[in-house]
Amino acid sequence: MPTEFNLIDHYFTRPAANADLGIGDDAALIQVSQGHQLAVSSDMSVVGTHFFAEAAPYDIGWKSLAVNVSDMAAMGATPKWVTLSIALPKTNPEWLAAFSDGFFACADAFNISLIGGDTTKGSLNISVSILGEVPIGKAITRSNAQAGDDIWVSGQLGSAALGLMHLQGKHQLNTDDQDVCLNALNQPQPRAALGIALRDIAHSCIDISDGLMADLGHILKASGLGAAITLAQCPCLALAKTQLSNQHIQQAILAGGDDYELCFTAPPQQKTGILALAKKLGIPLTCIGTTNTTGTLSVTHQGNAINLSQLGYDHFAKTT
Amino acid sequence: MPTEFNLIDHYFTRPAANADLGIGDDAALIQVSQGHQLAVSSDMSVVGTHFFAEAAPYDIGWKSLAVNVSDMAAMGATPKWVTLSIALPKTNPEWLAAFSDGFFACADAFNISLIGGDTTKGSLNISVSILGEVPIGKAITRSNAQAGDDIWVSGQLGSAALGLMHLQGKHQLNTDDQDVCLNALNQPQPRAALGIALRDIAHSCIDISDGLMADLGHILKASGLGAAITLAQCPCLALAKTQLSNQHIQQAILAGGDDYELCFTAPPQQKTGILALAKKLGIPLTCIGTTNTTGTLSVTHQGNAINLSQLGYDHFAKTT
Repeated sequence: MPTEFNLIDHYFTRPAANADLGIGDDAALIQVSQGHQLAVSSDMSVVGTHFFAEAAPYDIGWKSLAVNVSDMAAMGATPKWVTLSIALPKTNPEWLAAFSDGFFACADAFNISLIGGDTTKGSLNISVSILGEVPIGKAITRSNAQAGDDIWVSGQLGSAALGLMHLQGKHQLNTDDQDVCLNALNQPQPRAALGIALRDIAHSCIDISDGLMADLGHILKASGLGAAITLAQCPCLALAKTQLSNQHIQQAILAGGDDYELCFTAPPQQKTGILALAKKLGIPLTCIGTTNTTGTLSVTHQGNAINLSQLGYDHFAKTT
Repeated sequence: MPTEFNLIDHYFTRPAANADLGIGDDAALIQVSQGHQLAVSSDMSVVGTHFFAEAAPYDIGWKSLAVNVSDMAAMGATPKWVTLSIALPKTNPEWLAAFSDGFFACADAFNISLIGGDTTKGSLNISVSILGEVPIGKAITRSNAQAGDDIWVSGQLGSAALGLMHLQGKHQLNTDDQDVCLNALNQPQPRAALGIALRDIAHSCIDISDGLMADLGHILKASGLGAAITLAQCPCLALAKTQLSNQHIQQAILAGGDDYELCFTAPPQQKTGILALAKKLGIPLTCIGTTNTTGTLSVTHQGNAINLSQLGYDHFAKTT
């Protein structure tokens, strides 16, 4: 590793609160709480694919960790430790300072310790591995949805996708909506507390990173089920609610990625408890439909089925 | 993730033997053995920095995991689980098949389960996070070397560096030496069994990835010690042994990276046990010097101190 890259260490080395041994040896050492499983997930963010080269480095730092926290939330796991490997074309102290500010802001928000990683010269690439804990047997998987479950989503859908469409010049937003949508795109708020609270409530759970249809599709495929969704029930910004027949809006809500909301299924008798949980956590939780045994996913609007393939939905094509 | 990238999953999805839940959900679930700490390390390998674009994909696959196994060995940890995130400019089935063959050959050699990761489009980048187990309190760190410890290294030093010099046209090798050196460069053999066996023997340990001086330097800095090394005691190929005054050879042995041998310190009374261990494991273990309280690292050859800064040794410059 070139000496100049020692500079990078300056921005990332700080004491790791939850570790027996943090950064600075060949490996970090941690202890998993008794009676718990370790949940492990890795995500790679690449310039040009996951973010624009000119994106604010604070946002890149925040989001590169937030998307991993979201994976822990989707399992009902408590995020605890993270490693960060980063390739950079050149060392740029201002960029690194802002990136690490964003990364650590997210780490602090969720009480996560950075325990290791790597820094190297190369095309901008950020690779994060996150470790979390969940009591043995309490993880919420994709494969345990039951026919007749209610399908719920947290927060609002499509905001990040509308923000991206705005940046790409595909869909114009007014100033207020721009702020909301770009914030959703750049600084997603992973639903860590919700995921943990759903351990004894939800049958299945996933985070919406690739769009509602694709991610709900993963649950349905893994559980061998179908589902019926009503578009008008899907929570979204007021601007979207008033234009539900617009194809951009349908695309944003149903196929837009980067929501990082949770989509989960639960038996109907949990409805009261879920609505109470929404109030307690201050997070909107909305029932958007029901699972069934048809084996297919249908979304209706004003009584008509939406042609999902027109929205870029490749039925069950994704396998992971 | 583009649909074409589903192809990649084909090469990497296989049952994970040691996991409660493997690839295919938002996170993998594993259980750490009771009484054990988890050792965690991440390494990123980038085209142009860590390997040539035209390198054999089998070798890239092997090495990207092997360097992480080496980190576990250096801690005395048993490698058990790994995540692999990979960015590729395009999906190339032949390249992927050979890469995954090499990766899984290394995984199988050390009984490691691939439990997760990510695949995306981007400049070729391979990011691996490895998880291993070590009985609580038994990890071998860099910071516990004691003054008067013997300094040991496994295997031979400088072979990979000579292989690289040969590829770069800097140092010509005959055909037999080429084979040995290129094999050392492309398919390093991490010393997993040795690391585990050293738990109750070594005071400190590191793997030699950046060159003997730099990595021994980490031990010395972390332990607040100096050391005296004799070049003629350093284990190396016969071709190097006969040219110890040649600067390329000195550079390869003392400053050459990519050895992935272990460098460890142990009290002198362990000498007999260490030599017996070498015999038992079939791995050469050689004492190359002694730690001291001088605070500096000196290497002598034929009674004269070698000018280490001429070999590119930046005294204690590296911090991680």
